[in-house]
Amino acid sequence: MSRIAFIGLGNMGAPMAANLLKAGHALRVFDLTPAAVDAAVVAGGVAATSAIDAVVDADIVISMLPASRHVEGLYLDASSGLLPHIPAHALVIDCSTIAPATARKVAEAAAKHGLAMIDAPVSGGTAGAAAGTLTFIVGGEATTLERARPILVNMGKNIFHVGSSGAGQVAKLCNNMALGVIMAVTGEALALGVSHGLDAKVLSQMMAVSTARSWATEVCNPWPGVLENAPASRGYTGGFGNDLMLKDLGLAAEAAMSVGASIPLGELARNLYAMNSRAGHGGLDFSSVVKLVAKDV
Amino acid sequence: MSRIAFIGLGNMGAPMAANLLKAGHALRVFDLTPAAVDAAVVAGGVAATSAIDAVVDADIVISMLPASRHVEGLYLDASSGLLPHIPAHALVIDCSTIAPATARKVAEAAAKHGLAMIDAPVSGGTAGAAAGTLTFIVGGEATTLERARPILVNMGKNIFHVGSSGAGQVAKLCNNMALGVIMAVTGEALALGVSHGLDAKVLSQMMAVSTARSWATEVCNPWPGVLENAPASRGYTGGFGNDLMLKDLGLAAEAAMSVGASIPLGELARNLYAMNSRAGHGGLDFSSVVKLVAKDV
Amino acid sequence: MSRIAFIGLGNMGAPMAANLLKAGHALRVFDLTPAAVDAAVVAGGVAATSAIDAVVDADIVISMLPASRHVEGLYLDASSGLLPHIPAHALVIDCSTIAPATARKVAEAAAKHGLAMIDAPVSGGTAGAAAGTLTFIVGGEATTLERARPILVNMGKNIFHVGSSGAGQVAKLCNNMALGVIMAVTGEALALGVSHGLDAKVLSQMMAVSTARSWATEVCNPWPGVLENAPASRGYTGGFGNDLMLKDLGLAAEAAMSVGASIPLGELARNLYAMNSRAGHGGLDFSSVVKLVAKDV
Amino acid sequence: MSRIAFIGLGNMGAPMAANLLKAGHALRVFDLTPAAVDAAVVAGGVAATSAIDAVVDADIVISMLPASRHVEGLYLDASSGLLPHIPAHALVIDCSTIAPATARKVAEAAAKHGLAMIDAPVSGGTAGAAAGTLTFIVGGEATTLERARPILVNMGKNIFHVGSSGAGQVAKLCNNMALGVIMAVTGEALALGVSHGLDAKVLSQMMAVSTARSWATEVCNPWPGVLENAPASRGYTGGFGNDLMLKDLGLAAEAAMSVGASIPLGELARNLYAMNSRAGHGGLDFSSVVKLVAKDV
Repeated sequence: MSRIAFIGLGNMGAPMAANLLKAGHALRVFDLTPAAVDAAVVAGGVAATSAIDAVVDADIVISMLPASRHVEGLYLDASSGLLPHIPAHALVIDCSTIAPATARKVAEAAAKHGLAMIDAPVSGGTAGAAAGTLTFIVGGEATTLERARPILVNMGKNIFHVGSSGAGQVAKLCNNMALGVIMAVTGEALALGVSHGLDAKVLSQMMAVSTARSWATEVCNPWPGVLENAPASRGYTGGFGNDLMLKDLGLAAEAAMSVGASIPLGELARNLYAMNSRAGHGGLDFSSVVKLVAKDV
Repeated sequence: MSRIAFIGLGNMGAPMAANLLKAGHALRVFDLTPAAVDAAVVAGGVAATSAIDAVVDADIVISMLPASRHVEGLYLDASSGLLPHIPAHALVIDCSTIAPATARKVAEAAAKHGLAMIDAPVSGGTAGAAAGTLTFIVGGEATTLERARPILVNMGKNIFHVGSSGAGQVAKLCNNMALGVIMAVTGEALALGVSHGLDAKVLSQMMAVSTARSWATEVCNPWPGVLENAPASRGYTGGFGNDLMLKDLGLAAEAAMSVGASIPLGELARNLYAMNSRAGHGGLDFSSVVKLVAKDV
Repeated sequence: MSRIAFIGLGNMGAPMAANLLKAGHALRVFDLTPAAVDAAVVAGGVAATSAIDAVVDADIVISMLPASRHVEGLYLDASSGLLPHIPAHALVIDCSTIAPATARKVAEAAAKHGLAMIDAPVSGGTAGAAAGTLTFIVGGEATTLERARPILVNMGKNIFHVGSSGAGQVAKLCNNMALGVIMAVTGEALALGVSHGLDAKVLSQMMAVSTARSWATEVCNPWPGVLENAPASRGYTGGFGNDLMLKDLGLAAEAAMSVGASIPLGELARNLYAMNSRAGHGGLDFSSVVKLVAKDV
Repeated sequence: MSRIAFIGLGNMGAPMAANLLKAGHALRVFDLTPAAVDAAVVAGGVAATSAIDAVVDADIVISMLPASRHVEGLYLDASSGLLPHIPAHALVIDCSTIAPATARKVAEAAAKHGLAMIDAPVSGGTAGAAAGTLTFIVGGEATTLERARPILVNMGKNIFHVGSSGAGQVAKLCNNMALGVIMAVTGEALALGVSHGLDAKVLSQMMAVSTARSWATEVCNPWPGVLENAPASRGYTGGFGNDLMLKDLGLAAEAAMSVGASIPLGELARNLYAMNSRAGHGGLDFSSVVKLVAKDV
């Protein structure tokens, strides 16, 4: 049993915290939205009055926030930043998906305070968070990861150590960039087939066992009616939002520009998701990008 | 045991014919390259002196040729076309990957001669052809496919019936278009990760069990050294050639234009493979497209 | 004064024929739409009862048709093709924008009938056609062009001889492919500026005298209100239709594929115009492609 | 006659400073490269020992630096930043091409020191700088621009006021993004034409007076031999470097991402220039991007 400060109780953070509570840990929870805190209290957590209040007695600090600026603010803000308030023996785990450069900056600042920190963004979505089957993609020291492992296994199934600080973020972006492209091209392929009179379900079944198989053909098929439980079959609601994918592709583009890398398909996909957002679909599942190329979907 | 005419004994056709011979069928074989015929004779086939000579007594005619113009010439040529020479009871199976419009045209001409025909392009590559584990993607009448099935199972493991004449070609192109994009974006992702100091093997292993998983991460990884048996680990030799992918993406673009479809990622990938070809890599495995975006690969 | 058969009296053909009539030539005119013929008769032409009827006494045959298949049908149709009916001394000028391969095929067939032919697609739009300021982009023999020149100057201002048969079409496609990309990127640039609070008119005025200057900044600006006479300022009506640009970009893609060329920007633009068409803007001026990337336009 | 501090004497800054000296102004010059300072002294300037030394008595401060971080460091560095050292009556003109956000940040900081500042990036290249024919694209207060105008006219021909602080940078990026795409697609068009047997010079001449006309067809044609004075005709040396265009397209991408804008062609072009850089052509003129798509160029 660990004393865990859990900050950020959104769509992902809330079920992750719930799984930690189920595993028997003592959680002090904080979120800017009172209702999110209330829900976590119902699940067994103790409400903290502030992020600082949450961490002062913690063994483990876990954050799950929307973007780089929130993470930077949480830990490094001149007046309210957490680093001076976290106990020296505590371990810091940031599960947010943010810019690699920000992850490195925060980890370096944590080190100056004598704190061990890993970046541990996740893959698996809200369903994986609820089921406790997330994949953690970890950057930081191997020894720090070993300290974190007993906690991470309460929330996820797979843990990958991909390198030093920031590497977890880089790997997450590489995965999501590929995913964004794979989803969009699967939509292109299905739309092309349907335009030629093929049945999207039959075509998907074939592709799902052929060389074009992917999570997009098998799990989150973008064509309505192909997979009963996919967002596409319920009006593209739920799932991983178009604008979240857009954010990740933007982070990937920045990561590419920072090292002079070329990601022609990744950046084209970024623009496709941006156009889909502009068409009013930013809040739908990212598989709705198929709407750009398909009629009557 | 069927009497089979097998025309086209290239990298794919030769092992397919060998598997039919192993299954006990009587094959009359033809290819424009005498050495290819000789090799098939060693495997147990009987050399035909011409394509017409191959088909005159056949129950089954199978063709496996490089491109639309070869298939159109083989069956429809005014002087040497096969259709008038194939026995009326015979079944025609074209396994070539060609334009859907050509497949429909040849099947319609065959029907006018009273011949049943299916388009049955394959997925699985030379390895699948040798192992008899190809996937057949079939367009044509269901009853015709049922007649063909006992033969197809001697060469492949999966058989998909995706629609009427030409639908097999459409589905094959949809699959290969998605594959071409998936391969190229996997290369982009690995190159981006490596540029940030990540290990391509560790990154690939993570992606292979995450949402970006694909045949490109698991079977034919484009980064040298990640998978021992992938073309990338042997100088991109063997495998499915860059220029064959370029051909398929061109067919996909034509299929898109013929129906007013949009395939932005598919056409960008077409250009990437064209640029890779222009850089002198047309004969390498298509995973060599990673060379466009990676240093020292 | 020449006896001219003019076939195809659409948005472009009608004003071109009118200019020839103004210059004093005798025209026998034909179009599948009777109203188009009637209008040309009002302008001074003589109605022919068929295309064959139009050409039988002609010195010059001019065609201005929508697409490759129409031109191929007009000249080469087994029963109604014009070639056997055109007098041997006559000169054939096809002004349609079609596939280079079709242009070469028809010119070769014409040569077998002893007829001199050039492909002479135009640039300048309906405004240029009306004003007699078209640019002719000519493929064929130089001596044939010299025979055509006295006629062409009645319809246009510039005449470029770019090569042998089909070269006129290739050059036209090269120009229009670049134009399609330039228009779309000008839209991207203006939308980006406006998103940052700039005034589209001021930004356009700056670009129009800077290194990004183009016909899209100076003549057919895609942003409403920047240029009073541009289609964008009248709801994108009139001008050169989105679907005509889409057609030309498709021809450019086919021309690229036929020689293994790479046109990454050209093919991406093709898909942008295809998406704009799918969004219901196929009949608007092609500058409406800006709608894909701009809010409230 | 004004007392001008001129900081940054590179390929652009040196000839700009020379033109100010020719116009009779007194310049105190500074650059981190002593040889650059020496050359400016030969032209009539006075060497400053530091940037601070240059500005202490200045009426006008002009900076021309490579990138955002240099400008931010020059003015805002905690220990050596210029703002506290510039006389209150002085006018600050930054001619560097940098991120709009950085331009706004520096201008706001200047305002807190009571200093008037404009961002005035230029168009026209080293040739325009030498000839005194640059275009200035200005963001800031109109009254500040009027104070700057008498100085700017000594270095340039056109002055555009495009909006408030940062707007000059936005407009410059919009222009250069469009330019980068126009250059690359002009290369695609010429390569396509040449692949079909056309002469690049004849094709360029036609395009230069047609709807695809641009600075890339008329002034800096990317095909060797078409324009005698273009970089392409001297091995792509001189001109505007590929990696400078790559930098500007990166700034455009960041500007797009910061407001959720879509620039599909702009970002694809960014990747083309990145691939050209990776092929070893980063130091060549940006028109060398044609090498990606052209054989034997």
